[in-house]
Amino acid sequence: MLQPDNYPSQALREAVEAINSLPGVGKRSALRLALHLLKQPSDKIHRFASAIDKLAEGVHYCNTCMMVSDGERCSICADPKRDHNTICVVESVRDVMSIESTGQYKGVYHVLGGIISPIAGIGPSDLTIKELTARVTPDTEVILALSGDVEGETTSFYIYRQIAPSGCKVTTLARGLGFGDDLEYADALTLGRSIANRQEFKP
Amino acid sequence: MLQPDNYPSQALREAVEAINSLPGVGKRSALRLALHLLKQPSDKIHRFASAIDKLAEGVHYCNTCMMVSDGERCSICADPKRDHNTICVVESVRDVMSIESTGQYKGVYHVLGGIISPIAGIGPSDLTIKELTARVTPDTEVILALSGDVEGETTSFYIYRQIAPSGCKVTTLARGLGFGDDLEYADALTLGRSIANRQEFKP
Repeated sequence: MLQPDNYPSQALREAVEAINSLPGVGKRSALRLALHLLKQPSDKIHRFASAIDKLAEGVHYCNTCMMVSDGERCSICADPKRDHNTICVVESVRDVMSIESTGQYKGVYHVLGGIISPIAGIGPSDLTIKELTARVTPDTEVILALSGDVEGETTSFYIYRQIAPSGCKVTTLARGLGFGDDLEYADALTLGRSIANRQEFKP
Repeated sequence: MLQPDNYPSQALREAVEAINSLPGVGKRSALRLALHLLKQPSDKIHRFASAIDKLAEGVHYCNTCMMVSDGERCSICADPKRDHNTICVVESVRDVMSIESTGQYKGVYHVLGGIISPIAGIGPSDLTIKELTARVTPDTEVILALSGDVEGETTSFYIYRQIAPSGCKVTTLARGLGFGDDLEYADALTLGRSIANRQEFKP
């Protein structure tokens, strides 16, 4: 329905094209969002644009764990109360935020910045695996908290091969049925692994 | 899962909050989009932000039909080949773009900028009805192309009462469209036929 040449305004077209370039935002949604912004007072539009603009320079990466940060060292790596000998390896910042929100983890993190994926053209050198290897000592426990799909497992194996020679302990997330899940609705792979990896019952 | 105090960076938090302020974009999606932008080269982020920023000043409204425009007069109102005695009254710019994309309408438009909605606190004075009344002459045909729901019909009735005394012809879209359907989501064929088969407005 939307044809490239019937935008009534060049500025509107540019905004729609910019929003449309975001992943998962179609042209129609982009137009809806652009017209919503257009209706806002101009200072609100400026604030919106400047919040986005600051992503280009206002965001740093922690020198240690490679997480998004306000400075050269993130608040988690700078916290002396955290256990710096336990490093949880995750794919992205979102995973850090998910784990932090559980309130159950007291170690530190290492953000890979992606996952090994030949299809997407992402190899080990595109990730922060070298930086991880440099952090690992024989006293370190490395928790591999990557996704359970083929690419996640491949990445876990690759990292294991890189860090195991240092003599560190390598663990991975417990996988199985979610708490409160019904057996009936579990997928066969998860249920099968839950049985194979069954644990001692501790009442 | 996302708690307000566990954003690893202030700039990231501000960007997420800005994107989250858009209608229909939740906090989780906003984070996903902000992290996507963050991964882009900084000149791409700047271009994105500046495209949004230009919405504040780079977009004008046509003096005649109130449509979004690059200047004081939109390209449709400035086109001598269009029939300036046929005015299609629509709720928003998106409706103009939908009708234009059918390629079946040769008249001009009038963008109300909304629809009468007591619940949303939008009354006739919030819309460009006065400006429409000023455009109407006894030779004008006004096509009321508002949505078929209660608010659309209410607005149509209100406009009819305002413009009928001028002696103009008032028509409305043929309801090949389902009742309650939005113009925006109609397919081009149905919408085009609805314009071609427009009928006299009989209150």
